[in-house]
Amino acid sequence: MTHVQPEVPAAIATVPGAVTDRAGARIVALDCYDVRFPTSLQHDGSDAMNPDPDYSAAYAVLRTDAPGLEGHALCFTIGRGNEVMVAAIAALRHHIVGRNVADVSADLGGLSAAMIGDSQLRWLGPEKGVMHMAIGAVVNAAWDLAAKVAGKPVWRLLADLTPEQVVGLVDFRYLDDALTPAEALEILRAAQPGKAARIAELERSGYPAYTTTPGWIGYSDEKLTELSRQAVADGFTQIKLKVGADTADDVRRMTLAREAVGPGIRIAVDANQRWGIAEATAAIAALAPWQPYWVEEPTSPDEILGLAKIRAAIAPAKVAVGEHVANRVIFKQLLQAQAADVLTIDACRVAGVNENLAILLLAAKFGVAVCPHAGGVGLCEMVQHLAMFDFVGVSGPRADRVLEYVDHLHEHFTDPVRVTGGRYLAPSAPGFSATLRQQSLRDYEFPHGAVWQRLPGHFDNPSKAPVTAAPIVQQGQ
Amino acid sequence: MTHVQPEVPAAIATVPGAVTDRAGARIVALDCYDVRFPTSLQHDGSDAMNPDPDYSAAYAVLRTDAPGLEGHALCFTIGRGNEVMVAAIAALRHHIVGRNVADVSADLGGLSAAMIGDSQLRWLGPEKGVMHMAIGAVVNAAWDLAAKVAGKPVWRLLADLTPEQVVGLVDFRYLDDALTPAEALEILRAAQPGKAARIAELERSGYPAYTTTPGWIGYSDEKLTELSRQAVADGFTQIKLKVGADTADDVRRMTLAREAVGPGIRIAVDANQRWGIAEATAAIAALAPWQPYWVEEPTSPDEILGLAKIRAAIAPAKVAVGEHVANRVIFKQLLQAQAADVLTIDACRVAGVNENLAILLLAAKFGVAVCPHAGGVGLCEMVQHLAMFDFVGVSGPRADRVLEYVDHLHEHFTDPVRVTGGRYLAPSAPGFSATLRQQSLRDYEFPHGAVWQRLPGHFDNPSKAPVTAAPIVQQGQ
Repeated sequence: MTHVQPEVPAAIATVPGAVTDRAGARIVALDCYDVRFPTSLQHDGSDAMNPDPDYSAAYAVLRTDAPGLEGHALCFTIGRGNEVMVAAIAALRHHIVGRNVADVSADLGGLSAAMIGDSQLRWLGPEKGVMHMAIGAVVNAAWDLAAKVAGKPVWRLLADLTPEQVVGLVDFRYLDDALTPAEALEILRAAQPGKAARIAELERSGYPAYTTTPGWIGYSDEKLTELSRQAVADGFTQIKLKVGADTADDVRRMTLAREAVGPGIRIAVDANQRWGIAEATAAIAALAPWQPYWVEEPTSPDEILGLAKIRAAIAPAKVAVGEHVANRVIFKQLLQAQAADVLTIDACRVAGVNENLAILLLAAKFGVAVCPHAGGVGLCEMVQHLAMFDFVGVSGPRADRVLEYVDHLHEHFTDPVRVTGGRYLAPSAPGFSATLRQQSLRDYEFPHGAVWQRLPGHFDNPSKAPVTAAPIVQQGQ
Repeated sequence: MTHVQPEVPAAIATVPGAVTDRAGARIVALDCYDVRFPTSLQHDGSDAMNPDPDYSAAYAVLRTDAPGLEGHALCFTIGRGNEVMVAAIAALRHHIVGRNVADVSADLGGLSAAMIGDSQLRWLGPEKGVMHMAIGAVVNAAWDLAAKVAGKPVWRLLADLTPEQVVGLVDFRYLDDALTPAEALEILRAAQPGKAARIAELERSGYPAYTTTPGWIGYSDEKLTELSRQAVADGFTQIKLKVGADTADDVRRMTLAREAVGPGIRIAVDANQRWGIAEATAAIAALAPWQPYWVEEPTSPDEILGLAKIRAAIAPAKVAVGEHVANRVIFKQLLQAQAADVLTIDACRVAGVNENLAILLLAAKFGVAVCPHAGGVGLCEMVQHLAMFDFVGVSGPRADRVLEYVDHLHEHFTDPVRVTGGRYLAPSAPGFSATLRQQSLRDYEFPHGAVWQRLPGHFDNPSKAPVTAAPIVQQGQ
């Protein structure tokens, strides 16, 4: 059918310098960890819909019988329910445990398609929500493993594949009215000239970032102003503010931010799905005098028709959406309906690298910018690889590309992102940069880790459950 | 905002004959059971995407401190992953355990909104997949409890509410560009005249059913022919065939079915999401000589724009979709885009009775028929209440309404559906008809039940995982 049988990627199958027993290793276990950070204590990450996130990760570890060789990836959540993600990842074990690393690495498209097509598990989506994100974690962990065996960071592993190999990694089911394998091949071939130069540019000067650090909704006006000034001093040319809880507050905060950064810096705003369609249009109009660059998630991420209406109404402000868009089918329609100017893809929301490749190709076909969502825990680490491959191998140089950055929790990773002068430096360590430090895993594993032993009842506190910023909640628990 | 604060439904608050200690009871636990039936052994329920379902239920039990008073509901799945649903239901305990039955019953809209708006759990959707279905199970169990305290079946409890009370149960967030609370009130008020007569009619002669029993894709031609004839003899005026694995097979089976039932019986076909858009149009054209009445799930249930294209191409055959439509926002857009003629709502896919009320009201606003999906295990038992309330209190008498029926697994319920002469008889026992027999719970609880003790390794069998009918799977596990 429309899923193209991939050739064995030569870059993976014959790795210069790879230890033989690594390539011949077998996956012996898929371990799942519930890891949580008590970020709600500081209001880091607070927005109109998520006032009290505890940044968390369902952490997937593919263990092998080769010493020291493991594949790592995480699915980001914001606290309660992280154990449901862990259960969903565990439910995928039969697709990967017992298989050879070389076989899995040689057909990552097949792995992805087999899990998405699991005839019983697909009932739980299909292709959306917990089960789909769990597939993403396992696919991403397999990519980490393949990249480690290849001795390359994931972005570079992708960049070294041929256009045919990349097309072979994509499932075109439900896409062919918008993007055929032949069209995808054409896009990838068109990006071949200059690829080596772009790789060199990336390794030399990195990829442009923007920062959301100043804009969390729980921060005071003083903190907002100070962090906005600091962002400009640090070299960022775009910041983002969370909005949507109260229009008067939004206007005040937008005014303060614009005063702090001056006219030459882009200010994006993010409503985190807070509004209905008419409400969004009105609220964004109120911010227009301060020139919002894009408006992210003005309403439900499922709102293809509604986002198209909002987009038509708020130009020149752009519509950005993606971190909660469930799958490539919704992304395709957002593009077909001209509902989005910017796709904020997420490394963990869809079914991993393979589905994100489909989305990068769709975006390139429609000429829409991909500016990935990051932040949380581990999202910056993982998604930078996709943004960099987009630049190197898919969409090429585009002035409007920028990658979100939030300076939280990077210290827990063995290969943390490096952001300097407002730019992400290209990762060079083999893998997907998603490996947690052993000590962090021990300290933050829920509920047994040392940090959680000191915070008994943190998730049981009923005062955390009612969403004071979200009036649809009439009475709590 | 747009969620209307419900009045206390008088029908629930003051129940004639209710035992005082029942109304004053407290919910002391939310128990979750993993219940599975080995239906794949017989190919019951087989279709193009689901060749080997093991019909399963994540069974939610709200225990109270009143003797014998419990609320029951289930979320239907098809086997593997049922344990993930169980974990998701358990993650909602803090929203309901410890609350008074009377308080919960008096604000079921608030319960639904609080769980949907849970500031951490909503990251796992939002409003889709495992977490959303889990909310549906808890909401539905609370409705069962409320109906038992009221001494009425759920359909009748709903029918006895005032239009204002029904509107108060609905969350209008993201709906107001298609349906306002005022419009919903108007629809419900317009259905008041004749309501008593329709209740009497329902209690006298039931609600029209159609049957999918003949049409499972794993059945032989002989079984298909025999069961099709039997369906007509049993009084059904519509049957449904599963299609989509192979067009030549579909044409042969459609021919056999049409010969068996004659020209006066409707034959619906169901492709279970098997096709792309162009593929769907071609495959349905091949069946046109045998007059398919509706074509269900021709492609991805997320395909708003694509379904609209298919619908325009295949008329007079109708497009039916709904059992996998994740939430009211997608349903709204399917209606706005004129992408569906028939909405096949499901009792367990969305966030329970309350969200299904929103969908019934949207369908009525757009004049589109609701013909619920059923089958599986417990789906007929639960969704009949919604179909009956639609007839009595929302859309009124419509010749095109029909409710799916499959004659599997009803023997496991204490109040099984009664279908006779091709019609569902109105349930009369208090509650949502979702209570499993104690012996069935003991026998089929996975993995400890007696049935599963006799089938060790049933879900570990790798031959069950590759989807032979779904060629997107390139290699299995």
